Amino acid sequence: MKAEIIAVGTELLLGQVVNTNATFLSEELADLGIEVYYHTVVGDNPKRLENLLGEADHRSDLIVLCGGLGPTDDDLTKDTVAAHIHHTLVQDEQALARLHEFFTFSNNAMTENNLRQTLMIDGGIAIQNPTGLAVGTLITKNETTYLLLPGPPNELKPMFHHNVRPLLEERFPQAEQLISRVLRFYGIGESQLVTELKDLIDNQTNPTIAPYAKPNEVTLRLTAKIADEMAGQQLLDDLEAKVMDTVGDYFYGYGDDNSLVNVTVEALKEHGKTVTAAESLTAGLFQSTLGDISGVSKVFKGGFVTYSVETKEQFLGIDPLLLKKEGTVSEACAIAMAEQARKLADADIAVSFTGVAGPNELEGQPVGTVWIGLAEKGQPTVAVCQQFNRDRRYIRQSAVMKGLDLIRRAVVKKK
Amino acid sequence: MKAEIIAVGTELLLGQVVNTNATFLSEELADLGIEVYYHTVVGDNPKRLENLLGEADHRSDLIVLCGGLGPTDDDLTKDTVAAHIHHTLVQDEQALARLHEFFTFSNNAMTENNLRQTLMIDGGIAIQNPTGLAVGTLITKNETTYLLLPGPPNELKPMFHHNVRPLLEERFPQAEQLISRVLRFYGIGESQLVTELKDLIDNQTNPTIAPYAKPNEVTLRLTAKIADEMAGQQLLDDLEAKVMDTVGDYFYGYGDDNSLVNVTVEALKEHGKTVTAAESLTAGLFQSTLGDISGVSKVFKGGFVTYSVETKEQFLGIDPLLLKKEGTVSEACAIAMAEQARKLADADIAVSFTGVAGPNELEGQPVGTVWIGLAEKGQPTVAVCQQFNRDRRYIRQSAVMKGLDLIRRAVVKKK
Repeated sequence: MKAEIIAVGTELLLGQVVNTNATFLSEELADLGIEVYYHTVVGDNPKRLENLLGEADHRSDLIVLCGGLGPTDDDLTKDTVAAHIHHTLVQDEQALARLHEFFTFSNNAMTENNLRQTLMIDGGIAIQNPTGLAVGTLITKNETTYLLLPGPPNELKPMFHHNVRPLLEERFPQAEQLISRVLRFYGIGESQLVTELKDLIDNQTNPTIAPYAKPNEVTLRLTAKIADEMAGQQLLDDLEAKVMDTVGDYFYGYGDDNSLVNVTVEALKEHGKTVTAAESLTAGLFQSTLGDISGVSKVFKGGFVTYSVETKEQFLGIDPLLLKKEGTVSEACAIAMAEQARKLADADIAVSFTGVAGPNELEGQPVGTVWIGLAEKGQPTVAVCQQFNRDRRYIRQSAVMKGLDLIRRAVVKKK
Repeated sequence: MKAEIIAVGTELLLGQVVNTNATFLSEELADLGIEVYYHTVVGDNPKRLENLLGEADHRSDLIVLCGGLGPTDDDLTKDTVAAHIHHTLVQDEQALARLHEFFTFSNNAMTENNLRQTLMIDGGIAIQNPTGLAVGTLITKNETTYLLLPGPPNELKPMFHHNVRPLLEERFPQAEQLISRVLRFYGIGESQLVTELKDLIDNQTNPTIAPYAKPNEVTLRLTAKIADEMAGQQLLDDLEAKVMDTVGDYFYGYGDDNSLVNVTVEALKEHGKTVTAAESLTAGLFQSTLGDISGVSKVFKGGFVTYSVETKEQFLGIDPLLLKKEGTVSEACAIAMAEQARKLADADIAVSFTGVAGPNELEGQPVGTVWIGLAEKGQPTVAVCQQFNRDRRYIRQSAVMKGLDLIRRAVVKKK
């Protein structure tokens, strides 16, 4: 089973956009046991795409194309592939209905060219796009399968997960299946994790262990290649137990689509605890991260953004003398912020963030210094000092992740 | 002058590494007036690379290869290219001296395989590597030029800047340069923008117009290909004037690295205005977006996250009767939130967000309904109702963008 990925878009050839779709698709296809032999990028040029398809036909069983499904005249992927295999384009009724619905509820006018997005290749399977308007197609001709997906990653990824993966699993079943499990860790770097697990990683054959570093966390993918599902799960259970023996304290949850905020909100719900926040350098990023989770209103009612000295006094009623004496980037300020926020919002738990996001130091403290306070009903309030690095955005994100972990550990009592 | 980029490395095909080298090289080559027609990724497999070189020879004047110059057995790029053009590999003395110097100052033992890194293709020009050990080669054979560079971006980039760029400028002097300008638009979709500019786009030759849709905004890149910089800027000025005649009302700023929040914060600074917010469904995302901008403390002191009915009353002092009578997703609530936030934070301008992020409807209002309030000192407070779509995250981001645009328009109006 040989596959290749063709990304269509002049913006990629001009270096304006990075081809992250090829990376994403490669990882997904590998996971399905489909080997990728080539990535190619070609501009919005039907002749060159047609030439490329001629080559790809001969060397690949599956050709995944991304980009060029949009409404404008330079979106030519569908037309070119259809012409190449001597098929026509037809309207997909489900995509058309979605388009009309979209523009009914939209502030933008629906221009005629949008209809192009609802065309698919006749004889193929329409792939619906949950987060966009361009419909995809999966079609097999002369033993080659063509899969057409849109270019924007925020459309391509959900389409792949929800609609393409099940299709490919059905079309291209593997004698041995890949059974995998993702473990997520917070508070340990990739190089340290790999060092701690060196013996396990060096001796891996089946199941395999693949570490993957993401911003502020590391995941481990355990994968068994085996015919029998039950036996595969047992292999993964055994390996997971060994991993947990070594680095279990940093483990927070399972799954590709999981996140620390998700696990933290679930823990709060499960224990019936509410949370609030007072944010200085993070400026609402912690609360906004909570807001990403649907149903968070059960545990989060609101909170404060106190970016300046004045708002720390005005909104939270913090003693100006304390701020003057201790400074705003201090243990005392973090504790006062958390305590006052908890009382004012009448919540079970409050977290506070005060520190130096940069680019300049503040109150003589270096960029990346962050105090995080944690106030719990019936518990002494504590604050921890962290030193983060890289840029402004990363420092603020790192602070939010640490705040989530403090709350999660407090709630599940894994202090 | 046609170029293509071939990246060699199985890790790219497995989705473990993103091909940022192709993006970097494309941008650099475009800047030198060299047009890139293809990117290809191939694994560490000499036969497939050899096949690819056979195709590339026919279609490109310049073939840039990156990756596969290292010390290990799977680093085969140099051997494959040399064999392809019937040349041999020779030791580069300068790279060899550097290798010995490196290991003299290193704690690691120099293993024999490191010598492979100092080999270049006989008859070519050696490209020294200021931050690594693998030497590159530039060689022309049968009117095709091959440029071999290492894979690690932290080696490839300095090599390109210091040693490759001057060579290419000398070898391929361009009569014409590419001069480009990016215009940014908010409040108009890509399909509508393209429809409005149809005549200009259909008749483009030089300069060209390339639209690009991003979440909640559209950019237009105007590009002139011309020998004289001044004449090029004049061409772009003329085209920009025509674009502005049609869609100027949606234009908010210039440049690839710009953003609506950046322009809005700059406008606030310029006019000496401060801003605050009361956020319900956005849950701090507006304020956090402001917090991304360094130096925002001059115009932003803090604000409120009032996710529940209770916190709207407690934090902002909104009349419970109003909330009961009008509902929280209402014009009256948005206006009260903005007015109260402005007063409590003593700011010049306040924005408020209240609406339905989903997945379920709220107070009988459909998912995506958002009221955004705008309170300005000395002006009547207003609120607009927007209907956004897609998912929770997109609805909240869309609301934040609209809030920024309302503030920007309010501030620049009073010039």
